[in-house]
Formats: sequence, C-alpha cells, structure tokens
Amino acid sequence: MKKFIIDPMDLSVDEINELVDLADDIIKDRSRYQDVCRHKILATLFFEPSTRTRLSFESAMLSLGGNVLGFPSGNVSSATKGESVTDTIWTVSCFSDIIAMRHPKEGAPRVAIRRSKVPLINAGDGGHNHPTQTLTDLLTIHREKGRFDHLTVGFCGDLKFGRTVHSLVKAMSRYEGVRFVFISPEELMLPDYLKEDLLDPLGIPYKEVRSMEEVMSDLDILYMTRVQQERFFNEQDYLRLRDTYILDLKKLDNAKKDLCIMHPLPRVNEISTEVDDDPRACYFKQVENGRYIRMALILSLLNLDHEVERL
Amino acid sequence: MKKFIIDPMDLSVDEINELVDLADDIIKDRSRYQDVCRHKILATLFFEPSTRTRLSFESAMLSLGGNVLGFPSGNVSSATKGESVTDTIWTVSCFSDIIAMRHPKEGAPRVAIRRSKVPLINAGDGGHNHPTQTLTDLLTIHREKGRFDHLTVGFCGDLKFGRTVHSLVKAMSRYEGVRFVFISPEELMLPDYLKEDLLDPLGIPYKEVRSMEEVMSDLDILYMTRVQQERFFNEQDYLRLRDTYILDLKKLDNAKKDLCIMHPLPRVNEISTEVDDDPRACYFKQVENGRYIRMALILSLLNLDHEVERL
Amino acid sequence: MKKFIIDPMDLSVDEINELVDLADDIIKDRSRYQDVCRHKILATLFFEPSTRTRLSFESAMLSLGGNVLGFPSGNVSSATKGESVTDTIWTVSCFSDIIAMRHPKEGAPRVAIRRSKVPLINAGDGGHNHPTQTLTDLLTIHREKGRFDHLTVGFCGDLKFGRTVHSLVKAMSRYEGVRFVFISPEELMLPDYLKEDLLDPLGIPYKEVRSMEEVMSDLDILYMTRVQQERFFNEQDYLRLRDTYILDLKKLDNAKKDLCIMHPLPRVNEISTEVDDDPRACYFKQVENGRYIRMALILSLLNLDHEVERL
Repeated sequence: MKKFIIDPMDLSVDEINELVDLADDIIKDRSRYQDVCRHKILATLFFEPSTRTRLSFESAMLSLGGNVLGFPSGNVSSATKGESVTDTIWTVSCFSDIIAMRHPKEGAPRVAIRRSKVPLINAGDGGHNHPTQTLTDLLTIHREKGRFDHLTVGFCGDLKFGRTVHSLVKAMSRYEGVRFVFISPEELMLPDYLKEDLLDPLGIPYKEVRSMEEVMSDLDILYMTRVQQERFFNEQDYLRLRDTYILDLKKLDNAKKDLCIMHPLPRVNEISTEVDDDPRACYFKQVENGRYIRMALILSLLNLDHEVERL
Repeated sequence: MKKFIIDPMDLSVDEINELVDLADDIIKDRSRYQDVCRHKILATLFFEPSTRTRLSFESAMLSLGGNVLGFPSGNVSSATKGESVTDTIWTVSCFSDIIAMRHPKEGAPRVAIRRSKVPLINAGDGGHNHPTQTLTDLLTIHREKGRFDHLTVGFCGDLKFGRTVHSLVKAMSRYEGVRFVFISPEELMLPDYLKEDLLDPLGIPYKEVRSMEEVMSDLDILYMTRVQQERFFNEQDYLRLRDTYILDLKKLDNAKKDLCIMHPLPRVNEISTEVDDDPRACYFKQVENGRYIRMALILSLLNLDHEVERL
Repeated sequence: MKKFIIDPMDLSVDEINELVDLADDIIKDRSRYQDVCRHKILATLFFEPSTRTRLSFESAMLSLGGNVLGFPSGNVSSATKGESVTDTIWTVSCFSDIIAMRHPKEGAPRVAIRRSKVPLINAGDGGHNHPTQTLTDLLTIHREKGRFDHLTVGFCGDLKFGRTVHSLVKAMSRYEGVRFVFISPEELMLPDYLKEDLLDPLGIPYKEVRSMEEVMSDLDILYMTRVQQERFFNEQDYLRLRDTYILDLKKLDNAKKDLCIMHPLPRVNEISTEVDDDPRACYFKQVENGRYIRMALILSLLNLDHEVERL
C-alpha cells in the first residue's frame, strides 16, 4: 500500500479490492479489530470544517483502539501565523502516526506531504479530490451489488460541480460493462472533459437526460446529489427546476426492486424523507460503510492490516 | 432504563434512586468502573457551546474507559449546510454508541432522536430542559442530606428564566414534606404556571419573598442563580437590586449549620468568593457530582450498569 | 517536583536535569512508557489558540496512555459568561488529573491555580512565560551538545518581544562559561532590563551585533526568531532589514560544522527552506523534543516518574 492517498485514482483496482475485502472482514467481526491500533495516534487536521468526514475518521480510529488529536477548523490552526502547509504537516507528523487532512485549496495535500514522516490521507481538497468518499461509495456498491462490473449507474443533480460524482465516474469507468446515465438540468451537466477524455476514448456508454422518470427503470444505482441554489443564474430557474431533482416515492414507482439509492450527504431536500424507510435507500448505510472503509484504509497505511488473522 | 433522556421528568422516582445509588457506588470506588466502557464511543454534539457541561460528559466517559468524539460549537457542525438535526444525529449514531447533545432550540432533542440508533442524552435545549443538571442537583442534595423528602428548599435570583430552577422545582415536588421558598426581585419571580399547574394542585407549601435574610434560618438548601443585567428594563433597577441577591458571609449569619448552598455555575458575583471556604458551600461539590451522575447515566443507558458487581 | 509550573525559572537546575534525563530515557524506549498514564486525564485549556503547543501536549499525554479533554480557543470556553479564571480552573480540576493552560493575559496562571485541585502547567501566558518551550529548547541543546555549559549561544531576529528568547537567556545564564551573541536590528534589541539586571551582575559576557555574518563562526547555537512586520514603524524599514535576518545556506558558509540551528516555530521565511536538509538544522528535532519533554513533565507532576524502572 502507498504511504499517501491523495486522489482516489492513486489506488489500483487490486488495491481497492483489498480494501473492500478488509472492510468486509471488519464488518463481519469488529471485535477482532478493536485493539489493533492501540498506542497509535491519528491526527485529523481540518483546515476547513467537515464534521461528517472528521467524525467518521475519528470513529474509525477509536474503533481500532487508537487515539485522536487535531483541529476541526482552520481558525484554530496556526496557519493564521503564516506557516506553510508543508511545515504544519511536518510538525504534526512529529506528534502522530497517521494524518487525515482536509484543506480548502486544491492541491494542498501534494504540498503537505513533502516533509511528512507519516502516512497522510486527503480528506478533501477544495472541489478536487475526496478519496475516502469515493472508497465509501465503492464499498457501498460492492456490498449492495456484490460486484463493480455490469451495472447501470445513474447520477442525478449537480453533476457539474459535484466532486464525488466526478471521482465515482472515474473509479467506476475501470470496470467492465458499466453504463452511466447523467440526470441534470442543462446548467449542471457533467463537464465535457470527463466525457471527451475519459468515457469516449474508453467507449463507455452513457446517456444524458433531463429527468429521472425517463430512465428510472434502467438503473441499478441512483446516486443523488444536492442542487445548490447559488449554482443558478436566477431564482426562477432554481425554483422551476428544483422539484425535478427531488426524489420521492412516486418517482420510484417503476424503479428496480433492488435499486441502490445513494447520496454523499448532507442532504437538504433532494431526497424526500418518505424514501428513508424504503429498503432501496442506502444513504445511511453509506455512512456506516464510510467508517469501515476508513478503518481498512488506516490499517493498510499503518501496515497493520495483516496483524489480524482474517476469518 | 429508557433509551433517550430528554426531560428530567422522563425519569421516575425509582429510576432516579437507581442512578443516585449507582453514582454513590462509583464515588466509593472509582477504580472498579474505570474500564467498563472500553471500546465504547460517546459523541458530544454541542450545537451551542457549553464548556462545563461538555467537559463533564467527556470526563465521565473517559473515567469509564470509553472514548469521545464530537464538536464543541455549532459553527463547526454541518448544520450550516442545511442538514436537518434528524439527519445529523442519524449520521453520528452510525459513528458512536451514545450521544450527548446540546442545542439552542427548545424541542430539538425530540426531533433529533427520530432516527437515532443509539441512546441520546439531552445536554440542554435552549431555555427548556437540562436533565443532567437536574440529576446533578439531586445527587448533591441526596449526598448532603441523605434524603429528598422533608426539606425546605430556597431558590434565589432569577427564578423567571432559570431553567435549572424550574426543573429542580418539578423534580423535588415529587417528594413528601418538601417546602419551597422563592427569593427574587418582582421582575424575576417564578412563572405562574409552575405555581398554578404544579404546586397548588399538589398542595405543596411555598413562600415568595424579596430578600434572603428574612428566610435564611428556615432553609435546608439554598439554590443560588445568576441575575443577569439584560433581564432588567433599566440599569438603575439592576444596580439597586443586584446586591440583595449576592450571598456573602454576613447573610449566612443566622443560617443553619448544615445548610447546603448550591449554584449551577458559572457564577459571576452572586456568591462572594469569601463563602467558598465555608463548609456549607456545596457548588464545587456539585461539579464533581455532575461527573459521577453522568457516569451513572451513561452506564445505565448502555445497559452496562450491572456489569460491575456493586460493593 | 512542584505542583504548578508557571515560569521556567520555577525549576531548579537539578529539576531541569531530572526532566532532561527522564526525557532521554523516554526517547530511548518509548514503549516502556506507553501505559504509565492509563486512566489519567489531561485537560488542555487554550483560552487563545496555539495548535502546535496544544497538539504537542495532547500527543505527549496520549503517548503515555492517558486521555485528553479541553478546548482549543477562548470563544468555546465559558469565560464569555463572565466566569473568573479561578472558577474555570477549579471546575476543570474536578474533571481532570492535570491541566495545561494557555491564556492571552500575563499572570493568568497565578490566578488560575488558586483553587486548582490538580497540577497545572502554564502553556503560555501572553508575552510572558512559556516554560515548556524553554524546556524544549533546553532538551534540544542538551541532546545536541551533551551539556549546557561553555556554549556560545546566538539569538537572531526579534529579541525585544520574543518571550522564548528572554526565557532561554535566563535559563542558560545559570550555566558556567556560557556567552551570548544578540543579532537584531536596532528596533528589536534585547530589553535593557535583561542586560542590567541579569547578565551584567552575573558578569556573563555578551555581544550585540547587526548581522549574522560577523559572528557566525563563533556560534555553537543559533536561535532564530520571526521578525514581524508589525513591529516596525514603517514598511521601508521592514523591507530593508528583513533579508538581513533570513538564514540561508550562504550565511552558513563559515559556521561551525556542529552548529545547532534552532527556531521555536512557526517560521514564516526567516529560515530558507534550503537549510532544512542541512544536518545542522535542528528546528524539527525541537518539535519532537517538545513532545518528549512534555511527557517527562506530565509524569513528574503526576508523581509517576518513578513508576517505570529506568533503563
């Protein structure tokens, strides 16, 4: 395993399979892993706040018997005194055994690792990468479907700015027989570069549509995202379009019985709460999977993944 | 034991006795409890800051051998992204074994528990409830007096807005032979509903007075609270009245030898520091009791209270 | 060992030797110390943020098997409600076994300890004292040079306001054969009181110069500090002088082979990153030493330093 996880694509298909297997094993019997990281310290350095991601990392480390220190937002870090990210990470790598870092600037993790003495996981750098979210999504797909290949994956909402969408499209493009359906308003369509540089050269089939209803029955996976008002030129457009991208039970009428509905969370109203009790709703399973895949990743980066004999 | 503690009155008299007994047992021999919560995680979610309460919860969990994660104030939570409290708690309940939540809005905990997969303790919701403060007060009364019944309990200061006062009045109303004395300026008298809906129907004797001196010799308990300047219409009224509600050694002249002086803290100047060394000052004993009753409550909610054989 | 460490000069030369010996022993075999503080709680109370110092304390306590609680900045403490520092510390001392406190006001720790039931370490009070930084510097000097006496110690940069400089000058003044060289712009010279009240009466030799080059070859230690723009009357002066106080490889041309370059960090640009790979660069060793000396200090204050048999 590499020492630094910056981009989800840093991981090979084989490495992802290993992580998914390890996470599966952890889920099977958590108690066997509960002391593996004893005396180890995870530093969670969040230069911008992201409570969900931070708590997921901290829960993962504590569930492995390890310890946690860090900061929850940039205004309590000493970056305000003009210190470089390289120096901050160098310093914290003297205090910890592994680092999870969130930073508002794209590319910050590449600068951060220059002097790091310990493994580092990018926990999100601006609109760029967020590898543990992608790994969470992959684990969820694998646990729900038993495979990565031969799936029709729909993405719905803001496909222009949603980094989790871009990353998952890239990650799923590596598997055979995968088809994509992109459901979005015209203003928020998937960026051209992903189609021209990735999907087209690989000959991966995809469709772009304006509404869920017309494609719902084809989907194995429906990945919902938030449509933020500030992405629109004017309020009327936003109000007119918003409801089209809200998933409710009615829109699920002709969906497959084993559709897997995902969402990176937080949601505002793009999935109606009436869907929450539907067995196809997997977005809170994703939250749980996020903890387990982070446990697997921490173990791998600390080279402790073989400390526990697999079941 | 219930799964959720929202209102101190959620607990029956019997359940309170059980908690008090358990806390007493913990105080007798802390070392027997120091590993009971090993591998368990408490989430402290403070949507508004309250350092004293948060640290008390965290100290309680750490003293049981458990772990802690969370956030100390709302501005580092993802509520800012428009997520509902229900979703936030649902998420965090995937990361932890028990939650303590503080929220500025009354009623927030009832919304929060809708999807929680783990026990939740209300650590204060606006001016509404704060059950662990009430339990702290009850443990202190029981440890100092050996009983809850047949006590004359004085409350002094801001009785209009002080939620700890309202809760403790309700909680103590359940015991036989309890009498209340309410000492406050006219502007800050106990709300009518407590008298009309609670005390009068139960026939509980109470007195309302303007100064401590006239009732001091009757009291078994004197519960002091802060008188905040912003509660008054004008500064003159505040300045005129303030000193009347400051407890000093002189005002204790004709108090009982075993009076128990309480305060929920923080204090500003409503108890003169000259009282701190008086053996009747119990407000820092309250702080310690707050830790122990929270240990008892965490153990009960996690169903671990019978893991340790009682002395 | 004392119960409270407020000023680095609170510690005798013998006590410093003991701490340095203990830190050396910890560095030799960390695993022997990894559970010594089990079930103990360190409270880190940072009324003003200082991530480096806080994380160093937390890492130290976790590396001893202990636990940590606290707050990272004043705006999440209840000082905002008008509570005195004495009361806050009294409260927290009911929740913890040892306290590390940072406060923006000089002298705050003396007020803080009045009612503290547990040991307290001053983690910096305004521009005043910062004893664990001084201990970190001393451990670094001792590890690099094997002694405290007969050294020529240069200080460079802002010698007027730099509290770490003042403290280290005081601490090193106690050893035989020590000589000082003070390198600074006229505006930022060492305060007169240190020369007139400390160095002159003890007959300690010192020199004051304007540039590093003229004294570099004499130095055993070069202690760099940040030159802050806001210390200057005008921008021209700052820009004119700044470069003089930036250490680069060229300025090290005629330095001793075993010069020890130190910096309390964070640095902005006063040490060029090209120096980072020079074996004489010791500033990140200082970071590591900071963790170890804090481990030693925590053990001593908790009277656990003799729990582990020395190697």
